[in-house]
Amino acid sequence: MPDASLHGVIPPVVTPLDSEGQVDVRSLEALVETLLRAGVHGVFALGSAGEAAYLTDAQRRVVVQTVAGSVAGRVPVLAGAVDTTASRVIEQGRAAVEGGADGIVVTAPFYARASVAETARHFEQVAAAVESPVYAYNIPANVHSSLPTEMVADLLERGVLRGVKDSSRDLGWLRTLLAATVGAPSSAVLVSAETLLDISLDLGASGIVSGLVNVDPAAFVRLYESQRRGDRAAVAAEQNRITVLTDLYHGPCPGGGPNAREVGGIKAALTALGKIENGAMSAPLPPISDELRHHARGVLTAAGVG
Amino acid sequence: MPDASLHGVIPPVVTPLDSEGQVDVRSLEALVETLLRAGVHGVFALGSAGEAAYLTDAQRRVVVQTVAGSVAGRVPVLAGAVDTTASRVIEQGRAAVEGGADGIVVTAPFYARASVAETARHFEQVAAAVESPVYAYNIPANVHSSLPTEMVADLLERGVLRGVKDSSRDLGWLRTLLAATVGAPSSAVLVSAETLLDISLDLGASGIVSGLVNVDPAAFVRLYESQRRGDRAAVAAEQNRITVLTDLYHGPCPGGGPNAREVGGIKAALTALGKIENGAMSAPLPPISDELRHHARGVLTAAGVG
Amino acid sequence: MPDASLHGVIPPVVTPLDSEGQVDVRSLEALVETLLRAGVHGVFALGSAGEAAYLTDAQRRVVVQTVAGSVAGRVPVLAGAVDTTASRVIEQGRAAVEGGADGIVVTAPFYARASVAETARHFEQVAAAVESPVYAYNIPANVHSSLPTEMVADLLERGVLRGVKDSSRDLGWLRTLLAATVGAPSSAVLVSAETLLDISLDLGASGIVSGLVNVDPAAFVRLYESQRRGDRAAVAAEQNRITVLTDLYHGPCPGGGPNAREVGGIKAALTALGKIENGAMSAPLPPISDELRHHARGVLTAAGVG
Amino acid sequence: MPDASLHGVIPPVVTPLDSEGQVDVRSLEALVETLLRAGVHGVFALGSAGEAAYLTDAQRRVVVQTVAGSVAGRVPVLAGAVDTTASRVIEQGRAAVEGGADGIVVTAPFYARASVAETARHFEQVAAAVESPVYAYNIPANVHSSLPTEMVADLLERGVLRGVKDSSRDLGWLRTLLAATVGAPSSAVLVSAETLLDISLDLGASGIVSGLVNVDPAAFVRLYESQRRGDRAAVAAEQNRITVLTDLYHGPCPGGGPNAREVGGIKAALTALGKIENGAMSAPLPPISDELRHHARGVLTAAGVG
Repeated sequence: MPDASLHGVIPPVVTPLDSEGQVDVRSLEALVETLLRAGVHGVFALGSAGEAAYLTDAQRRVVVQTVAGSVAGRVPVLAGAVDTTASRVIEQGRAAVEGGADGIVVTAPFYARASVAETARHFEQVAAAVESPVYAYNIPANVHSSLPTEMVADLLERGVLRGVKDSSRDLGWLRTLLAATVGAPSSAVLVSAETLLDISLDLGASGIVSGLVNVDPAAFVRLYESQRRGDRAAVAAEQNRITVLTDLYHGPCPGGGPNAREVGGIKAALTALGKIENGAMSAPLPPISDELRHHARGVLTAAGVG
Repeated sequence: MPDASLHGVIPPVVTPLDSEGQVDVRSLEALVETLLRAGVHGVFALGSAGEAAYLTDAQRRVVVQTVAGSVAGRVPVLAGAVDTTASRVIEQGRAAVEGGADGIVVTAPFYARASVAETARHFEQVAAAVESPVYAYNIPANVHSSLPTEMVADLLERGVLRGVKDSSRDLGWLRTLLAATVGAPSSAVLVSAETLLDISLDLGASGIVSGLVNVDPAAFVRLYESQRRGDRAAVAAEQNRITVLTDLYHGPCPGGGPNAREVGGIKAALTALGKIENGAMSAPLPPISDELRHHARGVLTAAGVG
Repeated sequence: MPDASLHGVIPPVVTPLDSEGQVDVRSLEALVETLLRAGVHGVFALGSAGEAAYLTDAQRRVVVQTVAGSVAGRVPVLAGAVDTTASRVIEQGRAAVEGGADGIVVTAPFYARASVAETARHFEQVAAAVESPVYAYNIPANVHSSLPTEMVADLLERGVLRGVKDSSRDLGWLRTLLAATVGAPSSAVLVSAETLLDISLDLGASGIVSGLVNVDPAAFVRLYESQRRGDRAAVAAEQNRITVLTDLYHGPCPGGGPNAREVGGIKAALTALGKIENGAMSAPLPPISDELRHHARGVLTAAGVG
Repeated sequence: MPDASLHGVIPPVVTPLDSEGQVDVRSLEALVETLLRAGVHGVFALGSAGEAAYLTDAQRRVVVQTVAGSVAGRVPVLAGAVDTTASRVIEQGRAAVEGGADGIVVTAPFYARASVAETARHFEQVAAAVESPVYAYNIPANVHSSLPTEMVADLLERGVLRGVKDSSRDLGWLRTLLAATVGAPSSAVLVSAETLLDISLDLGASGIVSGLVNVDPAAFVRLYESQRRGDRAAVAAEQNRITVLTDLYHGPCPGGGPNAREVGGIKAALTALGKIENGAMSAPLPPISDELRHHARGVLTAAGVG
């Protein structure tokens, strides 16, 4: 069960789809197995890289059950409980826990326009109703606001939250939060800014949640473990490799929005590496083009992966 | 069944809640009956004023079934199918249609970050999968982008969309859309900018969707019908009254966000008028305060309502 | 001298430049003369269409002196006093008044980040220091915030402001302001939303300030005068023509930003019409391309101009 | 003369004002002397902390001449050339150079809405016209967009820019820029994110430009020099002190906007420390309140300053 000790490399597992757009269970199982063998310290189902916003409730259940079944207790399993407000998040969270998740990851209200006080109550209501640790998901690109560090620190201190997954890429936010949570030392603070992982860990982040872990889990594990044992040269080498990998996010994706570009880049790389059978994307995201596949192969070569 | 002829005053029906936060079915039935008796031309369940983003799937089903059951075919019933992307919207839409809705109202993708091309496909996928007319919901305050008029006009012309519910309050957008849809004359264009209803109808809007209709449906019906028969003095008088009613949105609401303030203002007025039993709000919205109730009574008096 | 009676069609005069980027005084004089002969009711030097933000102080002085000299008291001359904060605006305003301007047009602070209270004081300080009526310039696209209607109404009522030039294209804003300024009936409320001019005048706007007046002043004068005498058919015909002219803003402009596209479209049309000698643009705006000139000619033909 | 070697602690010098709002030359001279004695490596006149946006051209000239005169060649003097577009920036820049500045700091166009290509040309035009090194000022809070790192790197490589002053507080931006400028090793990259100075210097930033340097220059000099000689404990101690000092930005400032709060916090501290005679602020910023002075004293005590 995840707790204070949630840490390390925690990939937001990509959701492989078949040509009908259904969850490709076999590829998902294989992907999870590959990740675990590479040494990841947890897995996160139904994050942005997992196309959570594009999956039906039934598909979300399949994803969580498949991931949790594959993991079989070897590492903690987090699951996104992505929905507009507390009552709906609670249903998503309960389904995730029934499916085997050890913790849920919850954003601020979205679509609904919430005040800070409402956002705090939102987390309190979810935490009170779902039998699972709750991790706040700070993802301003999607929610259109950032969680105030004072609010997060307070919720951590009171045990409402057990940690935070920060996708803001704002190191000032991270440092302020870490300084404010000295009194809640068991909190997990997971980061995703791929070009700043070394620094984030040095600042005190507990772990890493990045879609690129799907592509090269070993590099992230090496970075994390090198940082823990203080091998700065090894950290730098892996950070450089991962920074090169971020070019997967900038491939050609005509007609695609940011989600298409980011998930598409990861799936293009996974198919190039033979890790998933096909790179089908959730509708209405555009399918992966040959140009994007070509771009992905170039990035992998540049990063020395595969 | 709604079609080209969808028009007139179509209240986004408020969702009365009991003290446990469950749908107060009896109050909802009574509210619908009151609205129909006042002459509204349709009803819209699960809009923003209906707290759609705060209701569980089960609650949403209760709302649609209750509203459709109460309406019993007398007028068209629209229902919001509010979710992040097409696959999820389709499930919401099918549930609404099963519950008795005659048409569904669908926003652009949210939380997910979509391109224009993806947004157009999103509407196409929903329209292809749900056995119901689809109306686009242009609501930039919640979705954080406005639907391009060219895209909407194209989807209307191709019959993908049967109409649009515009909450942008941007008359330039409305006029450009109306000019672009001359070739799709059967489209419904519903507006919600309460201070600009007279002008919007003069420009060619088919009807009105405003949360304030719950409070004073007769005023909106009088405005609409006066405009249709060209009685400009009557239109002006009702427009003035409705503009006064918009002050319901600006009452004291400490700790509340925009949704709390707007829905709270409407529910405070409805309780003051005895139209719903209590003004309970969905968590985590703050409960209606005595100050807000007092404010609402003042606004009602100023508008000569009740 | 402008006062309560400032009204009608008030073109923001384009600033013709020679091939060295200096003010083409002769073309400017000729343009002003053309505008006056077409019956405009005032002129506005150093607005956005006049490239105010791109001109040096010396060039600004030449523009105001040239415009005021050409006008020679026949109509009121407004001038933009565009700068970051009150102390700098005051210098711009005094120079404009010395150059012959009868009133100055002033935005909220920009670059500097001001509160509402600071913005109100900003207008008070400018009005106290410059011997001229002050008109507020509501231009959220450039200043990144909209002036609160309550603040503007209060400043109008207290005589700090003599009017407002609204470039927000938000009819709700306009109507709210007009309703709030019933107690200040002598205020000038000038609008620029070209596709909504008929409605804006019907709502009570005093006049029109649009860059497109440079291209076809007679159409705007006919629209204004037709509206004043209640000839709705004539208003509609001219509104349609002007709406077609707004396509001048959407021509090809590779590498250009919004200012380049808008001013470029106007200057391309003016050169096509022979009203200015060349279409040189202020650095670093890209020069007008043959494609843009071709586009402009097409729009002029479609609008039946020239 | 500043060049590749521009580095270290470079305070954006506060502009002391007298009770009439004029530049308090004596206090400014004394402040500069204090800063130099504390070991700063350069000074930056007419930055945000220097209220550049609130000063007239004449006041700006007094500031630059006073600062340059006081410095008397002991360290490089930078000056902000803050204006809307290239032609106006060039005039500001030339005045600064005449006044004794060794380099000018230039933002992207503001108020005017510029494309990336126009922004690049803007810097080229300024660099070609002003006899001085040009430093790009990346200040998205005021300009409402961030400079693309590719553009900045290209301008640095071509020698158009000699460096950049980054106020974005975005370490991802900084690291990407530094990685992209390996080919332009002599560039100065100055940062201002006070809570991230240690990391920024470790990443390769050349120096620090922060308004708080005015308050405690010695702490910043110790931080910079400790970092240069690799004394991490000393760096951490000074970073902690400076992070405490950032609370000066969060004091009570009713009716004030962000500039008022930030500059007000610094001036309140400087008056508390006796470093400037009075804390007068540029109109229309509100005067410093007793509460803010009290807050500032508390922060200084907490930081062990004074």
